[in-house]
Amino acid sequence: MTQKILVLPGDGIGPEITAQASRILAACQARGLDIEVEEGLLGGAAYEVHGEPLPAETLEKAKAARGILLGAVGGPQWDKIEDLSKRPEKGLLGVRKQLGLFANLRPAITYPQLASASSLKPELVAGLDIMIVRELTGGIYFGQPRGIEERNGERVGFNTYVYSESEIERIGRVAFEMAHKRGKKLCSVDKANVLEVTILWREVMERLAPEYPDVELSHLYVDNAAMQLVRAPKQFDVVVTGNMFGDILSDAAAMLTGSIGMLPSASLNESGQGMYEPCHGSAPDIAGQGIANPLATILSVAMMLRYSLDEPALASRIEAAVGTVLDGGLRTADIALEGTRSVSTAEMGDAVLAAF
Amino acid sequence: MTQKILVLPGDGIGPEITAQASRILAACQARGLDIEVEEGLLGGAAYEVHGEPLPAETLEKAKAARGILLGAVGGPQWDKIEDLSKRPEKGLLGVRKQLGLFANLRPAITYPQLASASSLKPELVAGLDIMIVRELTGGIYFGQPRGIEERNGERVGFNTYVYSESEIERIGRVAFEMAHKRGKKLCSVDKANVLEVTILWREVMERLAPEYPDVELSHLYVDNAAMQLVRAPKQFDVVVTGNMFGDILSDAAAMLTGSIGMLPSASLNESGQGMYEPCHGSAPDIAGQGIANPLATILSVAMMLRYSLDEPALASRIEAAVGTVLDGGLRTADIALEGTRSVSTAEMGDAVLAAF
Ligand SMILES: CC(C)[C@H](C(=O)O)[C@@H](O)C(=O)O
Ligand SMILES: CC(C)[C@H](C(=O)O)[C@@H](O)C(=O)O
Repeated sequence: MTQKILVLPGDGIGPEITAQASRILAACQARGLDIEVEEGLLGGAAYEVHGEPLPAETLEKAKAARGILLGAVGGPQWDKIEDLSKRPEKGLLGVRKQLGLFANLRPAITYPQLASASSLKPELVAGLDIMIVRELTGGIYFGQPRGIEERNGERVGFNTYVYSESEIERIGRVAFEMAHKRGKKLCSVDKANVLEVTILWREVMERLAPEYPDVELSHLYVDNAAMQLVRAPKQFDVVVTGNMFGDILSDAAAMLTGSIGMLPSASLNESGQGMYEPCHGSAPDIAGQGIANPLATILSVAMMLRYSLDEPALASRIEAAVGTVLDGGLRTADIALEGTRSVSTAEMGDAVLAAF
Repeated sequence: MTQKILVLPGDGIGPEITAQASRILAACQARGLDIEVEEGLLGGAAYEVHGEPLPAETLEKAKAARGILLGAVGGPQWDKIEDLSKRPEKGLLGVRKQLGLFANLRPAITYPQLASASSLKPELVAGLDIMIVRELTGGIYFGQPRGIEERNGERVGFNTYVYSESEIERIGRVAFEMAHKRGKKLCSVDKANVLEVTILWREVMERLAPEYPDVELSHLYVDNAAMQLVRAPKQFDVVVTGNMFGDILSDAAAMLTGSIGMLPSASLNESGQGMYEPCHGSAPDIAGQGIANPLATILSVAMMLRYSLDEPALASRIEAAVGTVLDGGLRTADIALEGTRSVSTAEMGDAVLAAF
């Protein structure tokens, strides 16, 4: 059965990097992968055409797709839009919510070829391989009530950080399963010494633990987790946390690998439908110059093959091709090092295709 | 007029490190500083005696004191207390709230003698000097409603992230003043692309900016701020943010200096009354062994002299004494490096006193 794939280039460098990833998708088709690829508008790009960041047409296509490949959304030109619901980011949040993509998998891996690009000492990040499992459709991102209103003669802004037991359990199971398949260590991050919502979080994680006897569960407060990531990141295997803490910690972890231009992510729902996107953002400062690194987006295609299309062999081939290209010394500007060859976005795409 | 100082040793290594800092306070008295020092119970230590982490007696003493010196609170033996309001941390939060200590100043400084102890490459942290200004009596730490309750047949945990314009303005002014006196750069951290409360935060910061024309105001989303701290921390001068983001970012920043055992903090109210404490926690794993680093607590005394007692000269003398001791190669275990001499908590106190 032909599976539908939706490519959402989005904003900033999004169109450039998804263009290269789309070439890889086409190469997979040529190798027999039975997919049908279409494109859609999301974020600022959609706002410019339709006046909203998630047009009905895009949402419909997204629902029909088995896998969605997203570039990135957002840019300074849309930061001034008064109505928060019209901002590019809300398009992204809308897809996550509408498709129920509650499980965000954010690997933080140091590519051996790039360990020296990290701001951390090489020995602290060499071989680093963390999987951050972030809850993506709940928490303070979506909690009600929320808003800005007048109280006692002044304005007050408020948001609600909320999780139900079933929401926590659902993401907890994904994380325990992941730890079971990997290094058997799961660290749950909360702020249970201050926030009631995370007391419940911790309790549910504890309750699940006996069902996964080979996984060692630990807990860290979020402030301590941020410190430990900086101090000794290799102590972590799988980390599970809520939407907001996950946003912060996964970006910090990604940056300390030195490989942020290389890191893909997956956002999955219960039926394995997923959205795949690079961890880095839309990088408006370098958009349109043809110098962005397409590898995280190309590796997002690999994640899609693995998690939504059940094609692990093809996924591994893409990953191997990327490794070959790095071994060959090709680098986009963001990961350029002495003695390596700087290439453009398209040249990097060419090279991966050639090695594929 | 004699000023009252309250020492709250707290839990874990708290008693050991405040003991050394108290010797410095006594030495200041010997040099003519007109203070009266008493002790009080807070946190787990208070819970064991009074069944609550902030006894009325301690609160009364705290209110009467011009400066409070706190060791640290918390430990695993109290993590199981069902009633969150009885946990050690709530004692600390209670003092902050009851005394209105809304302005938390958390310097992240790399001591030249310790730059190589950082997990970051030395050139990225040498000379680092960031001041994180964290709002401390509002935000999600104190927002109502909060709790865990039954909804639709399951339990739900919830907290409220809330700030009023006046709360934001108050901390904003502290941060702008601080930037004005320092490097003239202020970075405000929020998540204004998702959270309404931080849209208001950003708006108020923007409104204040014209009153401080020599300060350059910038904004970062919290996930990006976490990345930038890891990537290139020296880009920051003063950072201002809310209670929760400040908790996370200040700990990450402290850790990346490599000098976390060295970093003091101040929590001030509008009349200059303040609580001073080391950035590191109660370190229950090494409590009672006499090996904890007392320098952050000793430097907290220096901050107290500067911000609450208007004794900058004495403050500088303490800081200089600490510098002398580091130059001499003395180190507690946490900052030990090859070629330096490892000393105990008390020996470190001796050395600072001798250099003072
Ligand atoms: C763009 C933004 C809304 C988004 C988020 O905060 O989730 C991004 O930072 C991410 O992590 O995917
Ligand atoms: C102990 C805890 C309640 C406290 C906080 O979260 O504020 C601590 O982490 C701090 O940063 O002072």
